[in-house]
Amino acid sequence: MFAQFPQQVWVNEVVTRDGFQSEPEFVPTETKIELINKLARLGLNKIEVTSFVSPRAIPNLRDAEEVMRSITRDTDTRYVALVPNEKGCARALELAVDEINLVMSVSQSHNLANMRMTCEQSLQQFTRIAEMTAGTAMRLNGSLATAFGCPFEGSQAQERILHFIDAYLERGLHSITLADTTGMAVPNQVHDLCQAVRERWPELEVTMHFHNTRGLGLSNVLAALAAGMNQYDASLGGLGGCPFAPGATGNICTEDLVHMLHEMGLSTGVNLDGLLAQSSALAFIVGRDLPGQVGKAGPRTLTRPLPESVKQLMQQHGQN
Amino acid sequence: MFAQFPQQVWVNEVVTRDGFQSEPEFVPTETKIELINKLARLGLNKIEVTSFVSPRAIPNLRDAEEVMRSITRDTDTRYVALVPNEKGCARALELAVDEINLVMSVSQSHNLANMRMTCEQSLQQFTRIAEMTAGTAMRLNGSLATAFGCPFEGSQAQERILHFIDAYLERGLHSITLADTTGMAVPNQVHDLCQAVRERWPELEVTMHFHNTRGLGLSNVLAALAAGMNQYDASLGGLGGCPFAPGATGNICTEDLVHMLHEMGLSTGVNLDGLLAQSSALAFIVGRDLPGQVGKAGPRTLTRPLPESVKQLMQQHGQN
Repeated sequence: MFAQFPQQVWVNEVVTRDGFQSEPEFVPTETKIELINKLARLGLNKIEVTSFVSPRAIPNLRDAEEVMRSITRDTDTRYVALVPNEKGCARALELAVDEINLVMSVSQSHNLANMRMTCEQSLQQFTRIAEMTAGTAMRLNGSLATAFGCPFEGSQAQERILHFIDAYLERGLHSITLADTTGMAVPNQVHDLCQAVRERWPELEVTMHFHNTRGLGLSNVLAALAAGMNQYDASLGGLGGCPFAPGATGNICTEDLVHMLHEMGLSTGVNLDGLLAQSSALAFIVGRDLPGQVGKAGPRTLTRPLPESVKQLMQQHGQN
Repeated sequence: MFAQFPQQVWVNEVVTRDGFQSEPEFVPTETKIELINKLARLGLNKIEVTSFVSPRAIPNLRDAEEVMRSITRDTDTRYVALVPNEKGCARALELAVDEINLVMSVSQSHNLANMRMTCEQSLQQFTRIAEMTAGTAMRLNGSLATAFGCPFEGSQAQERILHFIDAYLERGLHSITLADTTGMAVPNQVHDLCQAVRERWPELEVTMHFHNTRGLGLSNVLAALAAGMNQYDASLGGLGGCPFAPGATGNICTEDLVHMLHEMGLSTGVNLDGLLAQSSALAFIVGRDLPGQVGKAGPRTLTRPLPESVKQLMQQHGQN
């Protein structure tokens, strides 16, 4: 099981997009910029900064341009924006975003609910976006939402998922994300799908996007690691979820993920102590306790001093 | 990874002991009895009912005798009591408890903090308890607390753990529990220890006891399953933790565990819908929201009706 684990794992931080988009209050632009700059300095080599959507659709991200323009672009970090259509793509191109993330749901009904388009229409749009970006340095990532289950339709056929990956790659997309939009994935299902994808496309860059809705976020990471997957989306403090997916809450928490990976001996290049400090700051920003657990309990390596009474008992029993 | 999974998994419910012992308010005796009877009827074949401790040490379990005497003893369920000493053992014998659970920490300092005894003294006591119970039908389970790390001393040597299992078995204990008392276990460590135990004692009955303190409870179950372990402690709603272990919170949640196991195709014999109903009732009993997540999100198989607007879009696009 552990023999197949990749030794180096990449973490893609999504808090300023997936986390902030559904907050009840607008997070100030300056706060977003500062957080993104700090996260890049902590070693997160990919950050989903914002979304170039209509400010009417997601008012919380109405400052997308200003945020993208004002952050300090670390050369070791890939800065990503979610883009729902050609207009969003044009905005991303103007700001020379490193990568855009295109999203379609595997399930027809969820894509209609989320994007107001059929899957076929989404793919046609991706074709046009690929044409718009041809010859630029901007990379295209394609996300497959509801890949592990749709809240309306339930499980999705593996064939359908593989077919859509094909469709993405035919259109020139560079990488894909398999997203468990509403937290329906279970470990053996994750392992099966990851293995099928790896067998067919051994070199494809694949990111896994899990939610902890039913408590299985990190278990699903474990299953994906066992299938050799080495890129994971996560959100600082576990903030976020999809505002259009009923009952969907809780991206997996970045610091809990990094803690697990490090304690299993895998490298991420991310500074865990720094993340924990930023997670505390984030709880203050959003004004509430966050789902992340390592922030509350501390890393497992953080032992506590012996209570005085136990010290005395140790001495009585000749134990030091 | 999944090929090694046992097809049948046994769940040991600990909520009325591990959960209720650290509640701020005393849970009424009648409520405890009713809950235990309901849990047995839901297919939980092992229930840790209470603890025969001093009522001064744990006032919440001062009704241990009355609870044990008044429950309806289902013949398919094994009723267990935690016992800290000979006096507790005598009380358990009087009530013909099916099994007693003896606890010692692997770490010397934690055993002194928790039991006010050295490990050697604990083992001597287990010898006397084994003598007291010889020839009775009462089974003896020995728990090894802090098996995956001590909050004072950190990691514990695997040799020390194996040595103590030997010591338990020499004294005639019938089964063991490997307990992650303060939620320090990580999956590869769990897998290593379980494999070492299984190799040396292929037939030994071993229960895994995990806490979700750092978000890794179900991931650790997955790792233990991959090593063939088929018995798990869990607490309804995720209630509980060790009152003597600093920062220790959150047994893994029974309904989240059962949900994961069933969705991976493993059998538990437990009625998940019934558990979810009891978990809701439990939140009402303790007067607060519980950590369990499937209770909030619903099982992954519970799909939602299509919103009217999406139905209309489906029709427009000729999709049914």
